[in-house]
Formats: sequence, C-alpha cells, structure tokens
Amino acid sequence: MDDLDFEIIKRLQTDGRTSYTDISEDLGITVGTVRNRVQRLIENQILKIVGVVNPFKTGSPSVTIFGLKVRLQKLDNVIKKLVAIPEVRFVAASTGVYDLYVEVITSSNEELYRVMKNDISQIDGIESMESSLLLEIFKQSYDWEVGSQTSQQ
Amino acid sequence: MDDLDFEIIKRLQTDGRTSYTDISEDLGITVGTVRNRVQRLIENQILKIVGVVNPFKTGSPSVTIFGLKVRLQKLDNVIKKLVAIPEVRFVAASTGVYDLYVEVITSSNEELYRVMKNDISQIDGIESMESSLLLEIFKQSYDWEVGSQTSQQ
Amino acid sequence: MDDLDFEIIKRLQTDGRTSYTDISEDLGITVGTVRNRVQRLIENQILKIVGVVNPFKTGSPSVTIFGLKVRLQKLDNVIKKLVAIPEVRFVAASTGVYDLYVEVITSSNEELYRVMKNDISQIDGIESMESSLLLEIFKQSYDWEVGSQTSQQ
Amino acid sequence: MDDLDFEIIKRLQTDGRTSYTDISEDLGITVGTVRNRVQRLIENQILKIVGVVNPFKTGSPSVTIFGLKVRLQKLDNVIKKLVAIPEVRFVAASTGVYDLYVEVITSSNEELYRVMKNDISQIDGIESMESSLLLEIFKQSYDWEVGSQTSQQ
Amino acid sequence: MDDLDFEIIKRLQTDGRTSYTDISEDLGITVGTVRNRVQRLIENQILKIVGVVNPFKTGSPSVTIFGLKVRLQKLDNVIKKLVAIPEVRFVAASTGVYDLYVEVITSSNEELYRVMKNDISQIDGIESMESSLLLEIFKQSYDWEVGSQTSQQ
Amino acid sequence: MDDLDFEIIKRLQTDGRTSYTDISEDLGITVGTVRNRVQRLIENQILKIVGVVNPFKTGSPSVTIFGLKVRLQKLDNVIKKLVAIPEVRFVAASTGVYDLYVEVITSSNEELYRVMKNDISQIDGIESMESSLLLEIFKQSYDWEVGSQTSQQ
Amino acid sequence: MDDLDFEIIKRLQTDGRTSYTDISEDLGITVGTVRNRVQRLIENQILKIVGVVNPFKTGSPSVTIFGLKVRLQKLDNVIKKLVAIPEVRFVAASTGVYDLYVEVITSSNEELYRVMKNDISQIDGIESMESSLLLEIFKQSYDWEVGSQTSQQ
Amino acid sequence: MDDLDFEIIKRLQTDGRTSYTDISEDLGITVGTVRNRVQRLIENQILKIVGVVNPFKTGSPSVTIFGLKVRLQKLDNVIKKLVAIPEVRFVAASTGVYDLYVEVITSSNEELYRVMKNDISQIDGIESMESSLLLEIFKQSYDWEVGSQTSQQ
Repeated sequence: MDDLDFEIIKRLQTDGRTSYTDISEDLGITVGTVRNRVQRLIENQILKIVGVVNPFKTGSPSVTIFGLKVRLQKLDNVIKKLVAIPEVRFVAASTGVYDLYVEVITSSNEELYRVMKNDISQIDGIESMESSLLLEIFKQSYDWEVGSQTSQQ
Repeated sequence: MDDLDFEIIKRLQTDGRTSYTDISEDLGITVGTVRNRVQRLIENQILKIVGVVNPFKTGSPSVTIFGLKVRLQKLDNVIKKLVAIPEVRFVAASTGVYDLYVEVITSSNEELYRVMKNDISQIDGIESMESSLLLEIFKQSYDWEVGSQTSQQ
Repeated sequence: MDDLDFEIIKRLQTDGRTSYTDISEDLGITVGTVRNRVQRLIENQILKIVGVVNPFKTGSPSVTIFGLKVRLQKLDNVIKKLVAIPEVRFVAASTGVYDLYVEVITSSNEELYRVMKNDISQIDGIESMESSLLLEIFKQSYDWEVGSQTSQQ
Repeated sequence: MDDLDFEIIKRLQTDGRTSYTDISEDLGITVGTVRNRVQRLIENQILKIVGVVNPFKTGSPSVTIFGLKVRLQKLDNVIKKLVAIPEVRFVAASTGVYDLYVEVITSSNEELYRVMKNDISQIDGIESMESSLLLEIFKQSYDWEVGSQTSQQ
Repeated sequence: MDDLDFEIIKRLQTDGRTSYTDISEDLGITVGTVRNRVQRLIENQILKIVGVVNPFKTGSPSVTIFGLKVRLQKLDNVIKKLVAIPEVRFVAASTGVYDLYVEVITSSNEELYRVMKNDISQIDGIESMESSLLLEIFKQSYDWEVGSQTSQQ
Repeated sequence: MDDLDFEIIKRLQTDGRTSYTDISEDLGITVGTVRNRVQRLIENQILKIVGVVNPFKTGSPSVTIFGLKVRLQKLDNVIKKLVAIPEVRFVAASTGVYDLYVEVITSSNEELYRVMKNDISQIDGIESMESSLLLEIFKQSYDWEVGSQTSQQ
Repeated sequence: MDDLDFEIIKRLQTDGRTSYTDISEDLGITVGTVRNRVQRLIENQILKIVGVVNPFKTGSPSVTIFGLKVRLQKLDNVIKKLVAIPEVRFVAASTGVYDLYVEVITSSNEELYRVMKNDISQIDGIESMESSLLLEIFKQSYDWEVGSQTSQQ
Repeated sequence: MDDLDFEIIKRLQTDGRTSYTDISEDLGITVGTVRNRVQRLIENQILKIVGVVNPFKTGSPSVTIFGLKVRLQKLDNVIKKLVAIPEVRFVAASTGVYDLYVEVITSSNEELYRVMKNDISQIDGIESMESSLLLEIFKQSYDWEVGSQTSQQ
C-alpha cells in the first residue's frame, strides 16, 4: 500500500459512491488506475464498499454485544465457529476483561435467544459470555484517518 | 419505509456501488425511483454508503472499545459531547453493565491516551470507564436482514 | 394471622378461583368466614388474586431485571419513585451486590429504553444500574408454603 | 390469540376473581365463550390465576435470587433439573452477566442452605452461582399491558 | 437448649471467667447445674471459652480473608480439607459472590504464601480464590444476643 | 510484651478458664504474676477472655459479612460510626477490593434489614456495600501462634 | 535518538556497569561520545542506571499493586500527588478496568496501612482503589528491545 | 546479609555506576570488599545493576499488565512457562483478585497479540487473563529502603 491507496480510500470512506472519474481527476491519475487499485484493496479485504444501515431505523431489531472468555488453547476454533454464524456481524480479539468481542444482530429478542442457545452455546471452548443489548445508536462513522502514521515518518 | 426501500437497501448492503440501473431492472422500477429513494434513505440517516476499512490492514492503529458508566441524569449531555469527538466512531446506549458503548480509533496508543485524557475525561457526567484494545478483527459484515419483522406479519 | 388464614391461602395459591363454598366445606367453616378472611388478607396486602401472564406468550415483550446501587441515605426516596413508575412491576431490597432488584416489563426494547432514560435515570440517588433482559421463562410458580415456620413450633 | 383473549386477560390481571358474567357483559360475548377462552389460555400456559402472597407478610422466609453461569452446552439439562426442585419458584434465561436467573423461596436460611447444598449444587453444568437474599418487597404487580404491540400495527 | 442455657451463655459471653458461683447465685441454681450445663454446651460445640487475641497487637501477622468459589459438587470435600489446615481459623458457607469464606492467620506474608501454595492450592474442587489482607481490627465483640428469637415467641 | 506474656496467652487461647494456679505452676512463676499479667493484657485490649457461641446453634440468626467501599477521606468517621452499632461485631481495614470488612449478627433477616437501613445506610462516607449471609460455620478457632516472629529472631 | 543511542542502551540494559571503554570499542566510537550520550539519555529521563533489588530478598517487605479509579477531571492532580509520596515506586496510566496502576513498597503491612490511610486516601479525586499484595517475584528483567520499530522501517 | 550489604545497596540503588572507590571511602572499607560483596549480591539474585529504560521514550511500545487466574494445582508449571517467554518482563504471585501479575513489553500491539496468542494462551493451567495496556509512566523509582526492618530491631 502506498499514499495513492490511502488517498483513494479517504475519498471512499466519506462517500462510497464517489465516481472513479472524480477520484481520478482529483488525484491526477487515470480512471483505470483508480478502478484497479480499488479492486485490489477489496480483494485483499482491506476495503469494503457497503450500504451501512442503522438497524434501529429499519424495524425493531436486537443488536447485542457479547464479551466472551475463551479457553485460550481453543481460541482459533472458537473464532472460526463464530465467524460462520450468519447473525454474527463482528468478531475481534481484545485486551481487557474479555478475550473476544462479538456483535450479533437479529430481528427480535426471540431470534437472539435462538442464536445464543443453538449456535453460540454449542461452540466448544467458550468459558463464559456476557451480553449487552444496544438500545439506540447515536454515532456510527467510518472515515477514520488511514495512513497517518506512515505520512508522519 | 416500505418493502421497496428494503429491497433497495438489501442490494446496497452487499455492494455499495451496485449501479442504480441494475437495481431498477432487478426490481422493475425506474432509475429515478431508485435514486430518489436512496437519497431519502441517506438524508433520513437510515442508510450510509461508505468504504469501510479494516483498520488493522492500513497501519498499526489503536481500536478501543469503551464501556462507560454515566451519572444518569447527565446522559444526554455526555452523549452529545462524545459524538462531537472526531476519534469517537461509535456511540450507543445499552443494557447490561455499562450505560454507553463507545468505539475510538486512533493511529497509535499515544494518540489514544491523548483522546482519553484531553477529550473523554473532560466530559462532566462520566462516572467511570473501562477500555479494551482490539487486537485483530476476524469478521466485519454489514448485510443484516432489514424489514424481516414486517414481512413476517 | 392464624392457621385458618394459612389454610385458605394454600387453596388460593394453587387456584385463585377456587370457590369460597369449596374452601368453606373443605375447612368446616362458613362461606362468610372465608369471604371475610380473604377480603382482610387482600386489604392488608398479604394476598392478591390475579391472572398472571407469561409475557413471552402474549407478544414480544422486553422483560428486564435491574440491579441498582443506591446512595444509601436516599434509599427511601428511590424506592418511592420506582414504585410509582407503571412499567416497574417489582421492587425489592436485597443483600449481595445490589441494594435493590427491580423488574420492568415493556412491550418492546424501544419502550424499555424510554423508561430507562425518561423515568429511572431521572431518579436522584441511583448510583449505577445493571440490567439483564430475560429471554425465556421456564418456571413461574406461586404456591410456596406459608405458615410453615409457625406450625413447626 | 386475538384481541378478545387480550381483553379477557386484562380484566383477570387486575382481579383474578372477576366473574365470567361481568366479563361477558363487559365485552358483549357469552359466558361460555369467556369460560372456554380462559380454560384454553390456562391449558396453553399463557395464563395462571393464583393467589400471590407477599412472602414477607406470612412468616420470616428466605427469598433468594440466584444468578447462574452455566456450561452452555448443558443449559437444557440444568434448566430441567432446576425446574424440578419444588423450592425453585422461577427460572428464566437472560442476557447480561448471568445465563439463568432463579428464584428460591424457603421458610428459613437453614432450609435455603439445604436446597443450595443438596439440590442446586448437585446439578451438573452449573459453573458458578451468586445469590442475593431479598429483605423486603415494595411492589409486586401483574397487570402489564398484553397485546399492545399487535394493536399498534 | 432452654432459657437457663441462654442465661448462662450471656454471662460467659461478656466475661469468660465469670465464676460458676456468681452465675449460680445470679440465676438461683446450684453450682453443679452451672458446671454441667457449661460442660454440655462445650461438648456440643455450642460454646467455647477462649482467650481471643487481637493479632495486630502481638507481632506483625498476616490476617487474610479468602472468598472461594468451589466446584459445587465437591463442596463437602473442600470444606473438610480446609478445616484440617492449622492456619485456617474460620470456614463458613455463604450466599453472595463466594461459596465459602475462609480466614487464615499466619505470622508473616511469607508464611501466608506458603499456606496458599502448599495447602489451599492443592485442594481439588477450588475454582478460584480472592484474598484480602486485614490491616487493622477496630472492633471484635462476642456478646451477641442468644435465644432472642425464642423468647419473643 | 515478652515471652512470658506469650506463654500465658497460649494457655488461655485453648481454654479460657485454665486456672491461674495451673498456669503459674506450668511456667514456674507466682499466681500473682499470672493474674497481673492477664489483667494488663486485657486492659491493653490485647486479650479478651470470652464465651464464643456458634450463632447457628442458638437459634436461627442472620450472620452477615459486609464489604464496604468508603470515600477514603471519611474513613475515620465511618469506622467510628460502625463500631458504635451494637449489632456490628467486627470491623477491620483491608487490602483487596473493599476498604472495610464488617460483620453483623442479628436474630433474623428482618432485623438485619433494619440495621442496614436505619444504621449502616445513614453513615456519611460509605460509597457502596456488598453483603454475604453466612449459612453455616464449619470452623472457628482462636489459638493462633502468638509471638512466633519474635522467637525466631 | 538514533541507532547509536539504541546500541549504547542495549549494552547497559544487560549490565549497568559495562565500562564506557568497552562500549566505545564495541561500537567504534570514542569514550567521550559514549559518556556524552549516556549523560544526555539520563538527563532526558530516557535511561536510569540503578541497582534493582528483589525486595523479597532483603527483609520482609510489603510490595503492593494498586488499581485506582479516578474522577477523570482530576487525573493530573492525582498523578502529581501520588508521584510525591516516597513509598510510591511506580505510577502509570492504563487502559482496562483502572485509570492508574500504582506500586507501593513498604517495610511491613503496618507501614503499608499508614501510607494508604495518611497519604493515598487523602488525595482528592480518587474514587476507589483495589490493592494486591505481591507474595513472591519470579522474574524481573529490564533488557527489552529498544528501537526495534524504527530499525524495521 | 548484614548492615554493610545494605549500605552498599543503598548507594547503588540511586546510582548504579557509583564507583567502588567512592563506596569504599564512604564506608571505610577496602575496594575489594565492596567488589566481593556486590558480586555476591548479584550472584544470589538479590541485586541487579541495569540500565532501566522508560519504554514510552524509546519508540511506541506496548507495555501490558496481565492479571492471571490459574488452576491452582498447576501454579508452579504456569510460572515456569511464563518466566521462559522473553517478552515477559515480570512475574509475581499475589493476594487479591488474581493469582499472578505478569508484565509484557513488546514493540507494538500486533506483537503483543502474537505473544498472547502463541505463547501465553498455550500454557496449560491458565483459567483466565485480564490485560491492561499502560499508556504513560509517571514515576519509576528503585531506591526503596532495604534493611529497615532489621535495623529497627
């Protein structure tokens, strides 16, 4: 990745539908270069251009954050199993009190319980889990500064 | 919001750059309808089309989840102040142990400390905060099922 | 209260609609005595004859248990305010980690958040609160043995 | 379940002994319909008409709330065993810190210890349990609004 | 046990060396009765007449309170093993966060660590333990009211 | 304090009624010396000769351990107020999670609640308190080794 | 700081008394350069050459780690006051459950209590503190790799 | 160890490069005695003369404190394995909530995660671990008073 990648990303972070023509003119490169670079960033799972929905504005969903403590020697397997559950939207390793943070979005509390009971609870290696239901989202932004550390050096 | 909105959203959740022409043909409506509906969804802060970056693939960032306990009578003010901090990427109210979940992304641990000390700590009404540094992200998906509860009824 | 009260209560604990005639014959007393005793037990808030509904079978409600830590010198006022909130179904003082246990039943997560934010959070003297959403009820019985300690002595 | 069921339930929630005649007149249906519907609601474990006693007014009982963490793969068995213990009055699955909330009512602290030691502790799959003794009940009401979500739509 | 036992106990609770003659005169019974009753109370492990020392006034000891979480099915064995450790001065079952409270008194922090490592840690069935070192004792009294519940009835 | 004090204490720790004559013969000193030394140890609040009762064998009491977090600048005042409450049997400062450990013995759960509500809760400076009811005592011994550190040197 | 600084530091991390002559020969620079650089590193509080003692091998000390929660708006003042206490050996800000980690070394538990009560407890802005007494140190090393991130780039 | 050892240590605690000549003159002993004593103190792992670096001034490191709960019967093995990990800088047994305190210093958050995942997590006997990233160090001093307890007696 180089500064050009970062410049392209920055434009897409604020508006995922910025036209490649605008980006190419803005950066003084060809449209083909923009297209190739974006494609490569997406293929390498660095970038994902998506319509992000505020779940609280499209029905009455259950958005739940789980903190998991895991038998550490089984961490890899637990992660693989969690990632495969469709309702699981986010999985990350962390410092602090929990080994993993997991986000689950379902269309109701009943469906949440079904996922907890039939899917998450069946994974061997989860020692304990604590869950927090989100009740309202006040900010959700995606335009964090990329490449800043590199450019400082 | 009606089923047409949900159908449009579903297509953009998987690929934020799906052309309006494709969507219009797919759903048997005019391109203008697609454009108007998308615009309205964005204006009403229901939808946001963005390039989402995996922060761990664009440098060496500090991605931190905070759990905050808040003097409840000052909740509104705390939320307003948090939302205004640029490094704060996510703010949500929740059940469970914490009153608010907050996500902060900075380009280093030093910058994280600066945000904690100069910005978050200065907000009147935060009783205590616990923080967890994310160390790796294994899944980050945005195509949860919208409108499912409505369509069941 | 005497053994007769306890005998009457026992019959109503299992079936709240047992006819006073059945009770009077069963215990060898007049129907009037049964009626008077039941009335007095209800007036003294010892007994309450109610239709108890399993909330998970009549819609998709949010049944939430709160554990509250309270500025102890304001305990009386906090209890008074909590009792006055219609969605608050249960308030009890306890040993252990929390000072008060509170149960709230609302018809959705949104309404739960409204009660937390507009009603509970405004009560002066609540230091912190933790909440757990119930997801399914497996047993709910009301026929505990009354008067057993007395009758042993 | 339909609106008629909800209307009947509402009347019984406040007073479990409301006569079927009063309900039938109030709703403009026959007494037989009321009787049949109530019977069906009871058979389907949606409704239970009981005399609920305030345990603190009928002796000196031990009313204890347990929060249980459970080896998740054994959750079903743990629930089945808990439900079978007579002193266990309430069992529910929950989000938050605990997997299960359990309420136990005994006639003394000694009997509580006997139940904890001989019954609950013997169940395979309980990882840990925390207990809180209730010391006084300030509110206990059962007339939550049923069917409200349906009627809004 | 009867009221006479309680009366004898009350006198010994305040001063363990009250002469049996004084007690007998005070209660209008023979010295032999006092002696027999005390002996029986001691044999039944109801009463223990001891010189209680404030450990902080006789050197520089380590007085430590342990809260233990125990694999509940092994509770009996854990208790038996703990009771057999000489430095363990107190073992009790409890409600709340811990299953057992244990007090250990040693003559130094080093010896405390030796007991924790060689004795307590070796007991099969202890899930986890938390420890608090006492730093100063401000009150230690033993004359709680015995038999009060009986005499009220 | 010297070795003679420690030798006298050791004899009284096991049996608080050991006669001074036995102690004097055992240690080769006069009875007067024993008496004077014991008196001085008691006056200096180093020793207390008492009848210790197992509260679970003399009725059905509530024996409760409190862990208190205290506004640290008010620690002295909190201690003074706690010591003055008759039902408070033990007060100690500690390391670990709590600032103070407190033991309360009452004749019932109701009386416990009265002490919590009317006495402990009124003390200015207590930030929060957690309580554990003891359910059975398995060991309670008082003959810890005094003077051992001195004699090793 | 440059690579030469890092090379000098590495040699002193393993042996703080490595002669400047050895270092100068090893790195092919003059002794004067070594001396100047070391002096500057010390003046800038980057390096400190000290005799580190294992406290458990020079008596019977109390080595205690405190986790502090702080009223965040007073953080600067709390840090300043803690740093000024001679028995406080280490103060650091942190993520996780506590705002500050503090290490205190005293020559006994009594002296520890004196520092907690007279010094730390008097600091305005400390909300709560938890303490852990260290009982034995198994590893204490100081030769972490400096400058590694720079040299990789 | 005697008072002479303590006097030598005290001089090296403040400045690890104090010349042996200065120490010998200061204490009125020969340089050879100083050298021999220091050597013996180092060999017995009582003293270590090192250049201690403030990790936050030599790059952008991850300094992390871990609190570990350990299956107590495997404590010895866990300690041995932890000590062998190069990035582990400190291992100590403790009272309080955790069984072991461990400090890890790595050159980045990524490397921290690698150590947690590949090294610490693989150790059999660690039940759970909580981690806190240090963000800034305000005090780090090494001149605690040695031998003070001995000299008082």
